[in-house]
Amino acid sequence: MQSKRVGNYTVRFQNPPSVVGYASVVGKKEGEGPLAELFDYVNTDTTFGEKTWEKSESRMQKDALTLAANKANQPISAIEYIFAGDLINQCTSSSYAIREFKIPFIGMFGACSTMAEGLGLAAMAVDGGFSNLAAALTSSHFCTAERQYRSPLEYGAQRTPTAQWTVTGSGCVLLSDNGPGPFITHFTAGKVVDLGITDANNMGAAMAPATHSTLLAFFQDTDTSPSDYDLIVTGDLGKTGHGIATELLRDDGIIFSGNFSDCGLMVYDLEKQDVHAGGSGCGCSAVVLCSKIIRDLQSGALQKVLFAGTGALHSPVCIQQGESIPGICHAICISSNKQ
Amino acid sequence: MQSKRVGNYTVRFQNPPSVVGYASVVGKKEGEGPLAELFDYVNTDTTFGEKTWEKSESRMQKDALTLAANKANQPISAIEYIFAGDLINQCTSSSYAIREFKIPFIGMFGACSTMAEGLGLAAMAVDGGFSNLAAALTSSHFCTAERQYRSPLEYGAQRTPTAQWTVTGSGCVLLSDNGPGPFITHFTAGKVVDLGITDANNMGAAMAPATHSTLLAFFQDTDTSPSDYDLIVTGDLGKTGHGIATELLRDDGIIFSGNFSDCGLMVYDLEKQDVHAGGSGCGCSAVVLCSKIIRDLQSGALQKVLFAGTGALHSPVCIQQGESIPGICHAICISSNKQ
Repeated sequence: MQSKRVGNYTVRFQNPPSVVGYASVVGKKEGEGPLAELFDYVNTDTTFGEKTWEKSESRMQKDALTLAANKANQPISAIEYIFAGDLINQCTSSSYAIREFKIPFIGMFGACSTMAEGLGLAAMAVDGGFSNLAAALTSSHFCTAERQYRSPLEYGAQRTPTAQWTVTGSGCVLLSDNGPGPFITHFTAGKVVDLGITDANNMGAAMAPATHSTLLAFFQDTDTSPSDYDLIVTGDLGKTGHGIATELLRDDGIIFSGNFSDCGLMVYDLEKQDVHAGGSGCGCSAVVLCSKIIRDLQSGALQKVLFAGTGALHSPVCIQQGESIPGICHAICISSNKQ
Repeated sequence: MQSKRVGNYTVRFQNPPSVVGYASVVGKKEGEGPLAELFDYVNTDTTFGEKTWEKSESRMQKDALTLAANKANQPISAIEYIFAGDLINQCTSSSYAIREFKIPFIGMFGACSTMAEGLGLAAMAVDGGFSNLAAALTSSHFCTAERQYRSPLEYGAQRTPTAQWTVTGSGCVLLSDNGPGPFITHFTAGKVVDLGITDANNMGAAMAPATHSTLLAFFQDTDTSPSDYDLIVTGDLGKTGHGIATELLRDDGIIFSGNFSDCGLMVYDLEKQDVHAGGSGCGCSAVVLCSKIIRDLQSGALQKVLFAGTGALHSPVCIQQGESIPGICHAICISSNKQ
C-alpha cells in the first residue's frame, strides 16, 4: 500500500470519495437568514414536533439523514457507517437518532468541528476500501446547547458582543467511491491548540489559534496558497475569531484576497438577526456546507473549497477548575474534480 | 481498490496493522486486583499527583501514551493520529491530555466501547494507507464517572447488586503497518441497540443486546464460530450483562466452551474487592487489553482473540426525560499471525 500522506499532516485520497447525497434541516431563525431558500427543510417552531429540546435535536438528525439518503436514491440500510457526533453530553442527539436505523455507528466528539471530522473519517473509510457508502452527520440546537454550556434560557442572561448564536440545524453528507462529485480530495486532521482563553462567551478567540495551526499545515503540506481556492471557509469562528485567525495567518505570510469566510458569518444576517458575533454549533458549518457550499460546487459557481471545521473543546466543569478552552480545526478540501 | 468488506458488517484488513506499543496505567484498587503484576504503572493514591479528579484522569492518559511510545521505541511526535475519547462530558480527559502533545487528535465517543472503536479506526487509518503509526487511547476514573453519571461520592449512596465499579485506569495501543504482531485482522462496527433498560445501575443489561447483535454479525460475516478463538472477551458487561449476552447468543446457536469472558470480570476479584457485578468504564477493557491480553498474545498463550468493546450510551439527562439506555458493541479480532 502506497502512503497517501503528503507533507507532515495531510492525506491525499487516491480515489477521492464523491458526495452522492446531502441535506440540511434547520429551525425558524436559520430559516429567516440569508440561506433560507437553500435548506431542505425549515421547521418553524424549532420543536420539530418533539416534547424536549434534546428529542428535537435528535429528530433533526433523523430528518437530515433520511433526506440525504433520498437525494442519493439509496435506502438508509445501504449506508455502511455513520460517523456522527454532536455537542450534547454523551452525544445523545446522534446515538438516539441513529438507534432507529440499523446501521453501524461511529461516535465522534469534535465540538463544532464535527462535520469536518466526520467527512475526514468517512472519506478514509471509502478511500481505504472499507465502505462504498458512508455518512457524516451532526447537529446542534440553540436550546440544548445554551442550557448545557452557559445558562438556562429561562434566566434570560445577557449576551456579550463576542458571543455566538448556536445554530438549530442538522447536516448530513453521504460519500461513495463512485459518483459525479464534488469530491473529497484532502484531509488535514488538527492538533489540540490552547492559547489560554477562559471566556466561555468568546469561543471564536479560543478556536482561532487551532485554525491558524491547521490551515498553515494544509498550505505547507499541499504546497498551495489561498489563491488556489475559490473559497476557504472556517466553521465557525464568528466575527471575533475570524478576525484573529486572519491576523495570525497573515503574520505567517498567508494572505487572503476576499475568499476567506466563515459559516458563522454566512448563516445569519449579523446586522438584522441580533446574533452578535455570528453562528456556532456543530450544526452551523454542517448546514452551510449542506446548502450553499455543496450546491455551488455542483453548479460550477465554486470549483475548489477548503472547508475548515473549527471546534472549541469547551467544558463547563474544566472552566470551573480554572482551565482554559482548547480549540481544534480539521480541514477538508472539496473539489468539483478529482484533483 | 478491492473492497475489504466480508459479509454485511465486517472488514478484513488487507495488511493487518501490528501492535507495536501498549501500556496500562491504573489506580490503587486495580493495583490490588488479579492483574496487579501486569500493569505498567500503579498509582497508590489515585490522584496521580493532580488537584482534581478530572486532571488525574487526563494525567493517566498522558502517562499511558508516553509509556506506550517508549515501549515502541518511538518519539511521541512520530504518532500521526491519536484516536481518543472517554466518558467525561466533552471528552476532556482526552483533549486536555493530548493538548500537551502536538499530534492530530480524532475525538471519539463510544462510552466503554471506546478502546475497540479507537482500535478499529486506527487500524483503518494504517491499513488504508493514511498512517504509519496511530494510537488508540482511552481512560476512566471512578471519581469522575460516579459524580457525573450517578451521585457525588460524598453522598455515600448504596450500590445495587447489578452496579459495576468504574475502573480507574488508562490504556494505550500503538498500531503500525510494520511490526511483529499481534495483528488487528478484522473490525465489526456495531449498531445502536436499545431493548428498553432504564436502570442506570444496570449497565450490563443495557449493553448485552448490542453485544449479541455485533457478535452474531461477526461470526456470520467471518463464517467462524466461538471454537475458532482462544478467547472471546467483552469489555465490559459485568456479571449480570455477561450472563444475559451468553443466553441471547445461545438462543441463536452461538455456544461457548469456557472461552467467553469479560474484562469487567477479569480486572477485579469480585468476591474480595466488593465491586458487585464487576468493573466498567472506558478504562476497564483498555487496561485488561493493555496488560494480560496483549501479553498473552505476545507470549503465545493466546493465538486468536475476539475483543468486543461494549458501551452503554447512558445520559442522565435523557433518563430524566423518560428515555431508555442504548448500547453499542464494536468487535476487533486480534491474532498472533496475520490470518
